[in-house]
Amino acid sequence: MLRIGVLGCGRIGRVHAASIMRLPDAALVAVSDAFAQNALDLATQTGAQVRSSDAIIESDDIDAIIICTPTDTHYDLIHAAAKARKAIFCEKPVDMSADRIRDCIKVVEAYAVAFMTAFNRRFDPNFASVHARIQAREIGNVELVTILSRDPAPPPISYIKTSGGIFRDMMIHDFDMARFLMGEDPVQVFATGSALVDPEIGAAGDVDTAAVILTTASGKICQISNSRRASYGYDQRIEVHGAAGLLRAQNVLEDTVEVGNAAGFRRAPTMNFFLERYERAYLAEMAHFVAAVTAGTPLSSTITDGLQAQLMADAATLSLAEGRPITI
Amino acid sequence: MLRIGVLGCGRIGRVHAASIMRLPDAALVAVSDAFAQNALDLATQTGAQVRSSDAIIESDDIDAIIICTPTDTHYDLIHAAAKARKAIFCEKPVDMSADRIRDCIKVVEAYAVAFMTAFNRRFDPNFASVHARIQAREIGNVELVTILSRDPAPPPISYIKTSGGIFRDMMIHDFDMARFLMGEDPVQVFATGSALVDPEIGAAGDVDTAAVILTTASGKICQISNSRRASYGYDQRIEVHGAAGLLRAQNVLEDTVEVGNAAGFRRAPTMNFFLERYERAYLAEMAHFVAAVTAGTPLSSTITDGLQAQLMADAATLSLAEGRPITI
Amino acid sequence: MLRIGVLGCGRIGRVHAASIMRLPDAALVAVSDAFAQNALDLATQTGAQVRSSDAIIESDDIDAIIICTPTDTHYDLIHAAAKARKAIFCEKPVDMSADRIRDCIKVVEAYAVAFMTAFNRRFDPNFASVHARIQAREIGNVELVTILSRDPAPPPISYIKTSGGIFRDMMIHDFDMARFLMGEDPVQVFATGSALVDPEIGAAGDVDTAAVILTTASGKICQISNSRRASYGYDQRIEVHGAAGLLRAQNVLEDTVEVGNAAGFRRAPTMNFFLERYERAYLAEMAHFVAAVTAGTPLSSTITDGLQAQLMADAATLSLAEGRPITI
Amino acid sequence: MLRIGVLGCGRIGRVHAASIMRLPDAALVAVSDAFAQNALDLATQTGAQVRSSDAIIESDDIDAIIICTPTDTHYDLIHAAAKARKAIFCEKPVDMSADRIRDCIKVVEAYAVAFMTAFNRRFDPNFASVHARIQAREIGNVELVTILSRDPAPPPISYIKTSGGIFRDMMIHDFDMARFLMGEDPVQVFATGSALVDPEIGAAGDVDTAAVILTTASGKICQISNSRRASYGYDQRIEVHGAAGLLRAQNVLEDTVEVGNAAGFRRAPTMNFFLERYERAYLAEMAHFVAAVTAGTPLSSTITDGLQAQLMADAATLSLAEGRPITI
Repeated sequence: MLRIGVLGCGRIGRVHAASIMRLPDAALVAVSDAFAQNALDLATQTGAQVRSSDAIIESDDIDAIIICTPTDTHYDLIHAAAKARKAIFCEKPVDMSADRIRDCIKVVEAYAVAFMTAFNRRFDPNFASVHARIQAREIGNVELVTILSRDPAPPPISYIKTSGGIFRDMMIHDFDMARFLMGEDPVQVFATGSALVDPEIGAAGDVDTAAVILTTASGKICQISNSRRASYGYDQRIEVHGAAGLLRAQNVLEDTVEVGNAAGFRRAPTMNFFLERYERAYLAEMAHFVAAVTAGTPLSSTITDGLQAQLMADAATLSLAEGRPITI
Repeated sequence: MLRIGVLGCGRIGRVHAASIMRLPDAALVAVSDAFAQNALDLATQTGAQVRSSDAIIESDDIDAIIICTPTDTHYDLIHAAAKARKAIFCEKPVDMSADRIRDCIKVVEAYAVAFMTAFNRRFDPNFASVHARIQAREIGNVELVTILSRDPAPPPISYIKTSGGIFRDMMIHDFDMARFLMGEDPVQVFATGSALVDPEIGAAGDVDTAAVILTTASGKICQISNSRRASYGYDQRIEVHGAAGLLRAQNVLEDTVEVGNAAGFRRAPTMNFFLERYERAYLAEMAHFVAAVTAGTPLSSTITDGLQAQLMADAATLSLAEGRPITI
Repeated sequence: MLRIGVLGCGRIGRVHAASIMRLPDAALVAVSDAFAQNALDLATQTGAQVRSSDAIIESDDIDAIIICTPTDTHYDLIHAAAKARKAIFCEKPVDMSADRIRDCIKVVEAYAVAFMTAFNRRFDPNFASVHARIQAREIGNVELVTILSRDPAPPPISYIKTSGGIFRDMMIHDFDMARFLMGEDPVQVFATGSALVDPEIGAAGDVDTAAVILTTASGKICQISNSRRASYGYDQRIEVHGAAGLLRAQNVLEDTVEVGNAAGFRRAPTMNFFLERYERAYLAEMAHFVAAVTAGTPLSSTITDGLQAQLMADAATLSLAEGRPITI
Repeated sequence: MLRIGVLGCGRIGRVHAASIMRLPDAALVAVSDAFAQNALDLATQTGAQVRSSDAIIESDDIDAIIICTPTDTHYDLIHAAAKARKAIFCEKPVDMSADRIRDCIKVVEAYAVAFMTAFNRRFDPNFASVHARIQAREIGNVELVTILSRDPAPPPISYIKTSGGIFRDMMIHDFDMARFLMGEDPVQVFATGSALVDPEIGAAGDVDTAAVILTTASGKICQISNSRRASYGYDQRIEVHGAAGLLRAQNVLEDTVEVGNAAGFRRAPTMNFFLERYERAYLAEMAHFVAAVTAGTPLSSTITDGLQAQLMADAATLSLAEGRPITI
């Protein structure tokens, strides 16, 4: 039984708490939040205790820490948790600064604690199946990867302004997916982008429509495109062209119902809300963390994975700013 | 080069003439029609001569006769053509009376002429592929066949009144398809039907919505349903459940375009007009006739097939009238 | 908070217990089973108490009874629970005898207790959406319903022998679905069937492949077909042809992944296990029961619905035996 | 009746001749080819005369010239045909040199002759429908275009060596499609590529796997990817993300048949041969040329379109060579 403390009881903290409740080998012992009521509400629902984050990290009855607090607090919490020799599950991004992530890597390695960066999409059953079938050589060598990712609607401008930009905030998921599927790090990033959805996003110095080409040392190519708005819902597709075939994960639709009339045949829109779309991924992600930490086996998504994705996002941000490809 | 005469220059006669024009091994020599202008128009377009039907049948420069005249003329034309030792391609139904079809079979056999009943759907590339894959044992023994067939809109009431009823006029195609796919004749037919689309159809003694269950001696089951009206276009689907798998032919849509928006993802309606929907089938059907007659090899759809489908339609008509299953 | 006792801790009892655990407004108070260990196991997992079925029914701290025991025990449990004025959720079939179901209706009505027959498929999100959209007049009047239902593999012969036959054991779900979608009871049933999957099923006096036509007083037609074996998984499709359009619920596939190679494009098989396929339906079904009983509002699937489906199954069984349509 | 001469009786010349034969308002008067037998064969099949290219261009009984000869002959033939005041239909590329295309534009404008560059994909019913629906504002402003284009197998190395490279030989179709769909010229091209399919292609100085990002002045973005080999057939897809929706044209499959078994549900591969895949496009393209020249209305795909696509291909070639985005 892995005894767990959740730091941060916002939306994603509650998701992870619910996953822990459904896992037979995990126990949610304590929760913390900067706002006492948030922690109290989650504690009431789950039967967990409310403690401070520091107390949770120091607790003897806690084996693992789930970090769901704001990004700028991750650094200190990771350091404290590593020193307390807790297994760490950390929401992405680990930190906005690659150098600070490198510091975190040092402390994690120094104390030899298990660390998982929460790239939940790796655990989506569809994307996980694509990955597994690539590994099983079902399509031979990977040559071209296409990732199409669109959000239903942009976040508030206030959020955009502190988000680090579309590459660090949104495309970072796709950067991780690209590495995950290609099995190889990109050596060059070229990025372009426009503010087409909302001119205020442009005024804030960001873009809402972006496209990137990644290339690896062996010549693999990945194309990613993002939009902050899609009238047709949360659009999450990947396609991998290999030497011996193609693998693609289509969108998850709300249901399997189709209506036919003179206008044609209409299926449901995509599942629109990311928590619902990735519900199974969140559960599988936590199940993996609990199982791997319990067994002492490697985690699928490490702190180095967190660093690599951040470096790609940094490179894309620079590429857009300077209008040239960036070598990583 | 097979030299061909087309009797009847209505809609289907013109389709067959156009197919003949596209076949390198066939020549359209002459055409006839009860209305001189019809024949003249088609002759002008194709370079064929206008002759009377009798003259065409007797012509030495004609090897094969395509009968596209009204059903009640088929009997005499078949007899004349058989005696003139022409190969015969005859639109379905061969005749409305099973006994008269039996007479035709006798003369066709007596003069040993090639005879093909024009069940065009057997030559649709999709349905033909299903049939070929059943023959290749891709799904093992056939157990359950489901045929869904709906017209875009009912014909005029005047047509309904002389059509012989929905089973002889519309479902006859599906009866032939059932035999074609099951590879076995049904021994029992149970039919039901309602006039739901247009009460005038009911007043005319016919139904516009019908369902049938066929069973064969070995226990295969086929379900067919028809409607005279489908808002979503010309609906033509078959599905075969076998011991080792399922084969199905989906509808042919107008194009491959899909639009996504908040209402979902909408594809095109089905190809709506039977001549367009079955364009490739009509061409393949004529190509088969020309090739088989030229080579002296068996035809895929014989006069006996025409008789069997008519017997099934008769049985279904009786079943609906008497409310009981009919043994064939 | 609705306080619930579960009678019967077999596979379906455990499913319902898990659903109750996930519902915030329901509490699983006690469980019973003829085999003490079964009840103890489920109690340990859920924190419920183990009591006898009689004790649960008589308990003051229980508001509702979930009956998951063998069919032949339903009658007595329903009578006892009704007299104890408990809300009742009963697995289908309510009883194998229509007359005994009528007795149950009397006691349920006499004591005015809430009663829900567990037709879980009504709560599948896909089928529920089709129903809701029919109710919203999205396709106008319903004219033709097609239900295709196939199990992955037949149950053991020992089960077949006591199952009451394919119509009462398997097609009963489809009979309920037909009524649910047509909004009207059938007045006539014609059934046919064969033992094609396993000759032992035929030797046991049952069939494994069956097809039925239902007709209603207003002329609606429903075609149902069943097979006890489908190589392609658990096949559960419905299609409704209405005056103004078509609604269909396609199969639920295991994932959205597609592989393309020289053989074509291959998608995943259908979800193969009924508990997984209908997981969301089981949860929604229990949520409906809890909400409706708590609010005192009507239940979606009543004991009369259970009777009607049984009458249809009886009529189909008779139709197959006598080779004629049966009027209900 | 538009009287037409076809120059070049290779594969594409024969396709255009067959289209002309099917058009009621066009007559194929004469054909030419550097190899006399080629011209003779096509003449025999079609009833056209064999003449020299010069003679065709000078003929009084010819209104329009179809240029299907090798690319390096286009320049002189265009000049001669323009001076002879013939309407010109020219296979792409118009020329490998942008400057020489500019010369051709001058002569075409000087003699005010109709000129169509044969971008056949604009006339594919699926892509044409996407374009028409964009024009009809069905998805609002175009923001992101994704074009996936893969050939079944690479051409011979000998062909590769004289092809001008993948951007001029293969992606040029996609460049035209990008302009056609965005309704705006790109101002920047960034290209990348690898030789992953065949190292000999790399040794020949070309790539076989390529990806491009185009951006327009208004901020529209287009991603194109090409591969010279796709195990799953000839892959031709476009997708347009607009402010109010998405439009996509899926692949054209060989048939609509699906097989289901334990491995899942498999549909047919894509139509594999470009002449078959684009058969309807070739016919529609020629029908457009004939109709527009006859009526004196504008042609859909002009010589300037040919120049713009060539400039994009040149820019992509330079971008790949120099590893930087190129401004057009």
